[in-house]
Amino acid sequence: MKIINGNVTTPKGFKATGNFVGLKKGKKDLALILSEVPATASGCFTQNVVKAAPVLWDIERVKIKNDKITGIVVNSGNANACTGTQGIKDAETTAEVFANLANCAKENVLVCSTGVIGVNLPMDTLTKGVKETFPLLSNSYESGVLASEAIMTTDTFAKTVCVEIELSGKKVTLGGMAKGSGMINPNMATMLCFITTDANISKKMLDKALSECVLDTFNMICVDGDTSTNDTVLLLANGLAENTEITEENADYEEFKKALFEINKTLAMNCARDGEGATKLMEVTATGAKTKNDARKIANSVVSSNLFKAALFGADANWGRVLCAMGYSGANFNPNFVTIVFRSKAGEILLMDNGTPIVFDEDKAAKILKETDIFVDIKLKEGTETATAWGCDLTYDYVKINGDYRS
Amino acid sequence: MKIINGNVTTPKGFKATGNFVGLKKGKKDLALILSEVPATASGCFTQNVVKAAPVLWDIERVKIKNDKITGIVVNSGNANACTGTQGIKDAETTAEVFANLANCAKENVLVCSTGVIGVNLPMDTLTKGVKETFPLLSNSYESGVLASEAIMTTDTFAKTVCVEIELSGKKVTLGGMAKGSGMINPNMATMLCFITTDANISKKMLDKALSECVLDTFNMICVDGDTSTNDTVLLLANGLAENTEITEENADYEEFKKALFEINKTLAMNCARDGEGATKLMEVTATGAKTKNDARKIANSVVSSNLFKAALFGADANWGRVLCAMGYSGANFNPNFVTIVFRSKAGEILLMDNGTPIVFDEDKAAKILKETDIFVDIKLKEGTETATAWGCDLTYDYVKINGDYRS
Repeated sequence: MKIINGNVTTPKGFKATGNFVGLKKGKKDLALILSEVPATASGCFTQNVVKAAPVLWDIERVKIKNDKITGIVVNSGNANACTGTQGIKDAETTAEVFANLANCAKENVLVCSTGVIGVNLPMDTLTKGVKETFPLLSNSYESGVLASEAIMTTDTFAKTVCVEIELSGKKVTLGGMAKGSGMINPNMATMLCFITTDANISKKMLDKALSECVLDTFNMICVDGDTSTNDTVLLLANGLAENTEITEENADYEEFKKALFEINKTLAMNCARDGEGATKLMEVTATGAKTKNDARKIANSVVSSNLFKAALFGADANWGRVLCAMGYSGANFNPNFVTIVFRSKAGEILLMDNGTPIVFDEDKAAKILKETDIFVDIKLKEGTETATAWGCDLTYDYVKINGDYRS
Repeated sequence: MKIINGNVTTPKGFKATGNFVGLKKGKKDLALILSEVPATASGCFTQNVVKAAPVLWDIERVKIKNDKITGIVVNSGNANACTGTQGIKDAETTAEVFANLANCAKENVLVCSTGVIGVNLPMDTLTKGVKETFPLLSNSYESGVLASEAIMTTDTFAKTVCVEIELSGKKVTLGGMAKGSGMINPNMATMLCFITTDANISKKMLDKALSECVLDTFNMICVDGDTSTNDTVLLLANGLAENTEITEENADYEEFKKALFEINKTLAMNCARDGEGATKLMEVTATGAKTKNDARKIANSVVSSNLFKAALFGADANWGRVLCAMGYSGANFNPNFVTIVFRSKAGEILLMDNGTPIVFDEDKAAKILKETDIFVDIKLKEGTETATAWGCDLTYDYVKINGDYRS
């Protein structure tokens, strides 16, 4: 597996672009992705009961009807969520406009929206925008970058990643892009993420690989505990790499899954790092748990604790808040066996050892926590299961950004 | 039922006081409560797996051994949580010191601590403090006020309440005090609360009344989603009002429970209002739910949403975040039947009607949300169950207070 400089246009047969069409104030707001041949598609979607209209459309395509997918239309600036029956119609119309340009059925087109909730899409602007943007589709690296920029909302940097592997003697490439950066919480994606690949793989195995990878990547990040109405991860595989089709759990499948996990993990971590107002990335790893689920609950609970997130912002080694968050995680563990270590590139410090608090050097701890990448290691000594979650600090800017998001 | 000006010293036979003994920097840090005769005691405690040493001591007394209680020692400045076996000993020693002064067994004394986690109690200071403070115990109103001030941590105001009722021709009084104001989350108290009453009531009925009242009061408030290691509600009933003992669910029990609910609700609301950094109280009521649990989940989820809390701080009528939080609450409801109204003393505004977003006057909405007490009414139209939860806004000051709490 080789990490290369690329994005969604790097795999064979994929074009993309990003454009400003007037949905947001002066920022790119429309991204298109096109596969030259219909692609096998897989998706993971928000578990929120309130699902945005485009999410309902995509679930119908990808989960129920198993339609082949030719393209994806993504707009930022408006989430098309809580928009009633008009919202449903608008998602369908958007697919139709793109389908007419791409010479396919509307059922071959997926739609994603992100932005303000509760306002109907300005369909004239969007329709005009899709028509103007379609001719700009290209397989150049730069076009992929434009697409990754156009899906941003409060993100401060575009998130892309690309991985190359070899399957049955053929070069196979996976490219991805994602946007965060508020409403990020375990329990599915809480973001938009698009992954393209030229791998030849059956629908069944594609679904299996994606759902397995999402569990320990996008489901393990938290910015603010709010699970969005629009969270979506879409994966298109068009088969143009011409590898032997993956139809079972063989070595090729494992290699593909490893690459997909790398794509997911990189994008998920970058969403956490770019959490609204964040100045730090935290990576929390729980080891020695009785069950995988206990490990996941513990890691997720710590990255989600407002109190610990605020302490991290202040570079305050308030490890008691880590233990406290573990305690209300719902996981089964004995506090008397717990060991907690904080690490960064400035060093590491032991704070609790087998349930006993350790007197530590506050200056050293502060120095460690002033770095931008903070690692929290939790050892439970009760089993062999491990999980990692990613989050960020809670800052003045989070409050500022979300105190008046709509204006 | 009459709400009167009083506190924990108002019911017959209760003394209290608050004092500065050197646990905190220059602020009162020790409160004592004494009942002239051993009282029947009931308690509700944190559901966090990590329980502070005094919580373990109190659970043993109140839930397991059913000891009669003569007094309570409460210190602020140090939570005696995550303090290993030494912490357990320290809680016991604290009870013993008070017991020697009050001529009772240590098992007749409860202990509560609040403050920094993971640091052992300075027992010399605390022991000396308890001995110095004991002679100051008094049944005066002022002493009750001192006690309510001594349990404060980041609270900005002391929280007391007093209610008078008549049972079997006798005047019965209930007095309470509580402290918040961070680590406040549904799933038990997340605070310290002390209620005294001269009511004559059996242990069984006292337990029943307290657990029923906590469910819809202390379990329905949220400041930051963090459930503390120390949360405790203690209720002492010494019987000195000489009413006929309540031993079953009769009219006296209902009257007592109504008064207790009023005490709990007032203190819980004031904890939410005084949430760390808060500038606004929000009261969220869900009506028309299929089940009581659905109503509770929905109301709790909305008061817990960081995104909505930040919007409230900015007086931004971002009602989509209310619907979003309802959606990930785990409650069962149909978004298409939902009606959402924001209210304050400046007026009310309809934002979603039967699942359809309503175009609303932004200026009017901002005016309503600029008030300090905000009501969010959610109608589900699927059943008859109702629940109310209380919370506060998320502000710069929350981050500031918690970015460097220990120093």
